[in-house]
Amino acid sequence: MAGPSGKKEKVDKAGPSGGGKKKKDVKKETGLGLSVKKDENFGEWYSEVCKHEMIEYYDISGCYILRPWSMAIWEIMQTFFDAEIKKMKVKNCYFPLFVSPGVLEKEKDHIEGFAPEVAWVTKSGKSDLEVPIAIRPTSETVMYPYYSKWIRGHRDLPLKLNQWCNVVRWEFSNPTPFIRSREFLWQEGHTAFATKEEADEEVLQILELYRRIYEEYLAVPVVKGMKSENEKFAGGLYTTSVEAFIPNTGRGVQGATSHCLGQNFAKMFEIRYEDEEGKREMVWQNSWAYSTRTLGVMIMTHGDDKGLILPPKVASVQVVVIPVPYKDANTQGIFDACTATVSALSEAGIRAEEDLRDNYSPGWKYSNWEMKGVPLRIEIGPRDLENDQVRTVRRDNGVKEDIPRGSLVEHVKELLEKIQQNMYEVARQKREACVQEIRTWDEFISALNQKKLILAPWCDEEEVERDVKARTKGETGAAKTLCSPFEQPELPEGTLCFASGKPAKKWTYWGRSY
Amino acid sequence: MAGPSGKKEKVDKAGPSGGGKKKKDVKKETGLGLSVKKDENFGEWYSEVCKHEMIEYYDISGCYILRPWSMAIWEIMQTFFDAEIKKMKVKNCYFPLFVSPGVLEKEKDHIEGFAPEVAWVTKSGKSDLEVPIAIRPTSETVMYPYYSKWIRGHRDLPLKLNQWCNVVRWEFSNPTPFIRSREFLWQEGHTAFATKEEADEEVLQILELYRRIYEEYLAVPVVKGMKSENEKFAGGLYTTSVEAFIPNTGRGVQGATSHCLGQNFAKMFEIRYEDEEGKREMVWQNSWAYSTRTLGVMIMTHGDDKGLILPPKVASVQVVVIPVPYKDANTQGIFDACTATVSALSEAGIRAEEDLRDNYSPGWKYSNWEMKGVPLRIEIGPRDLENDQVRTVRRDNGVKEDIPRGSLVEHVKELLEKIQQNMYEVARQKREACVQEIRTWDEFISALNQKKLILAPWCDEEEVERDVKARTKGETGAAKTLCSPFEQPELPEGTLCFASGKPAKKWTYWGRSY
Repeated sequence: MAGPSGKKEKVDKAGPSGGGKKKKDVKKETGLGLSVKKDENFGEWYSEVCKHEMIEYYDISGCYILRPWSMAIWEIMQTFFDAEIKKMKVKNCYFPLFVSPGVLEKEKDHIEGFAPEVAWVTKSGKSDLEVPIAIRPTSETVMYPYYSKWIRGHRDLPLKLNQWCNVVRWEFSNPTPFIRSREFLWQEGHTAFATKEEADEEVLQILELYRRIYEEYLAVPVVKGMKSENEKFAGGLYTTSVEAFIPNTGRGVQGATSHCLGQNFAKMFEIRYEDEEGKREMVWQNSWAYSTRTLGVMIMTHGDDKGLILPPKVASVQVVVIPVPYKDANTQGIFDACTATVSALSEAGIRAEEDLRDNYSPGWKYSNWEMKGVPLRIEIGPRDLENDQVRTVRRDNGVKEDIPRGSLVEHVKELLEKIQQNMYEVARQKREACVQEIRTWDEFISALNQKKLILAPWCDEEEVERDVKARTKGETGAAKTLCSPFEQPELPEGTLCFASGKPAKKWTYWGRSY
Repeated sequence: MAGPSGKKEKVDKAGPSGGGKKKKDVKKETGLGLSVKKDENFGEWYSEVCKHEMIEYYDISGCYILRPWSMAIWEIMQTFFDAEIKKMKVKNCYFPLFVSPGVLEKEKDHIEGFAPEVAWVTKSGKSDLEVPIAIRPTSETVMYPYYSKWIRGHRDLPLKLNQWCNVVRWEFSNPTPFIRSREFLWQEGHTAFATKEEADEEVLQILELYRRIYEEYLAVPVVKGMKSENEKFAGGLYTTSVEAFIPNTGRGVQGATSHCLGQNFAKMFEIRYEDEEGKREMVWQNSWAYSTRTLGVMIMTHGDDKGLILPPKVASVQVVVIPVPYKDANTQGIFDACTATVSALSEAGIRAEEDLRDNYSPGWKYSNWEMKGVPLRIEIGPRDLENDQVRTVRRDNGVKEDIPRGSLVEHVKELLEKIQQNMYEVARQKREACVQEIRTWDEFISALNQKKLILAPWCDEEEVERDVKARTKGETGAAKTLCSPFEQPELPEGTLCFASGKPAKKWTYWGRSY
């Protein structure tokens, strides 16, 4: 990987620095480092962090280039998820990018949800197309006419397909890398079952995989729950989701969704099967997706004023090994020790790289790899060589440790696991500190202003959610439901809805959201 | 996998057939089987074969649905190729689907080649976009403005990126599944080097990987060679390709291309680096791609009048195990033996499936799996059970063999390898039989009419190729150069060009092509 773009040349021109310079000087010299702090200007901080080197901004607004540093993380999640769904007998396929208008508009609620964001192709070369063609915002209407063709008898069920693809939603609200982009990558699973029970079961199996992606891979704590009627998937029966929370902005973020579509699309697209008695029945359907948004949530959750912090499980480079030569030291010996260290780690399946560039000081390299979020740094200098040890420096908490080279691999493995766990734990604690249980409207408004993740007793009425939205509308967006967590705290009889004063039916998370 | 769509119900209605029915009857009953022969109506044959179950035709012309049966093959090739390029230190990334017109049109020759096929987005929702936006037909112009930004010094080179994505070329010539479709999947590699030597070397490394995909995975023989000036990539310096040949239609098919772009794009997009002496130099670039077209070439090459024939290395099901129960036989014992066989094969890493459906006769199942091209069938009937053996039936040549269950795994492994080799060998011989060396225009026309793969001495002049195209223009398309093979036969001094009569410079393959 190249260094932060545009900044390297300055060092080149200043001439190779032999090492030993203080980090502060190097920063000054190279312009390395972020220009804003996470707590001071979160939006600008996020944008800067993404540029090292997850994203490159593109000349079309709302479109971003995923650089290898982020793509590698996406691929690691993909490998995990793809293997898991294959165990569930889901098969991959690929449906076209284009949808004809008649099909797109077949399910009324669904198209109402997506119509304003649909991009239309109207020309090829210099000719107008006879009929404008839509680019998929999601593939329900692309796929289901064929489900209707493929599903005839009960033996054709369940039908479980998935595709990895790009989709386009030409949104006009503030574009944000990963979180809200006009084109994004995702997987979309589309399944059909004979019974609602099977569909219900799969919705939760998939949701659990999404939880694992966030919690086990990205070290981001999420809440599993049910979306409200207002917030469910357009045209579906119910939507479950994993919801994350960004303490700095006090916003919830929908992490991934697993929808039961019920029989609504089946009705519109006539997806019927003959059961064992020869009766024609409608199928029950699910669809579920997670996208490159996951990467944005990870960056927002873990990054600090030094840059990215990548969880070891998804980092394409888990360990970076940096030589720290001094003038009168055995430089070649140090370099050799670095190479040997990388070899030993690589052989043990740890993703390790050395940074032997001679035109940067160790201090510059430290900052550079910290910026890029590599979970563990190993430094090898003359004293380490003498003592047959290496120095490890954790990215998550800065803790330094000297470890004997004899037990290098075990130590590093253990450290990477500790980092992964600690990152999750820290993030969980930060989120927990933001959760506020409220009972009344005043408490609600006060908690909202304090950027809390609000847990409130709610009557579960659509009209009331709309009303809350209307009453909290402002520059920073209206508050809405995030989800009703499956793990419900006790709801004592007589508890009233914070907003309507009617009897509360459930605890629900509320807040502003991405 | 479901049976051939729409045909299964007929069997369902006829009631489960207990087995033992003659294949001919079953075919009649179910409509199973192709309605045309490969030799009689190749186009119709290809379309029918693709529908079992590689492709589903889509309601937008030139777009196709890749069903799991073809997607699994694509994924196997992808796994191979992706690992190989990662060894070469190529990194994956993802650039946007959309290109702004200014950037698209920057390289004049390049855009001339693609402009007529570019699809344009002009609307989102009900609003017109301020500027129409193009959908990538390929990503040179999408990527290179950023190469210019990322590449500063010699240490930033080589830059080696690849992406797996969809591209759109709104062609108006006859759409053909896999071979010519308006949207297709591919990988596109884009690399930049300090020297032409490095670029030249990589062009051939990649071409060798493409040869391996065709020959080792798809069992399709290809010729490596150089494209003519007329046929090279628009805007590039030179194009190498692997070329396949379809004997039935006498057409060549460009299998995959590896281009050296020279410094042409570097000039247009100002991709320069500072060398070790501080001098500003232009980079040398390559781009290379293979697409889902590979699948079409495989189907055309191997399929027969019974349907697809899949090479074992890429088949998602390499072995199908079918019980052949008889009325008074130990049906459960047979079923158990099938399951045990699949387990044993799966454990050995062989992709095996059993077909225990009770509503189809064994004969119907044989035809069905033959249609889908599974390389090896294992039948287990009462006699096999008695003799502790299984019967194997090869899809490529129909050869049957009884093999003891004790040596099942070794036997099957060996058979799959033999099938893979035999498929390649048969295809190679068929192609060789079509190669015709010619010297004169009359021989050329005669060979062309006989659907030969023509090897001709050529003066290598653009004007002459254009002239040959003009003179052979007809309903079935003009003849053109396919490639000049790297392995050149001897060219005796004084040999003249078949078309111009000028001194010949090289042997070149000519023919009609897809």
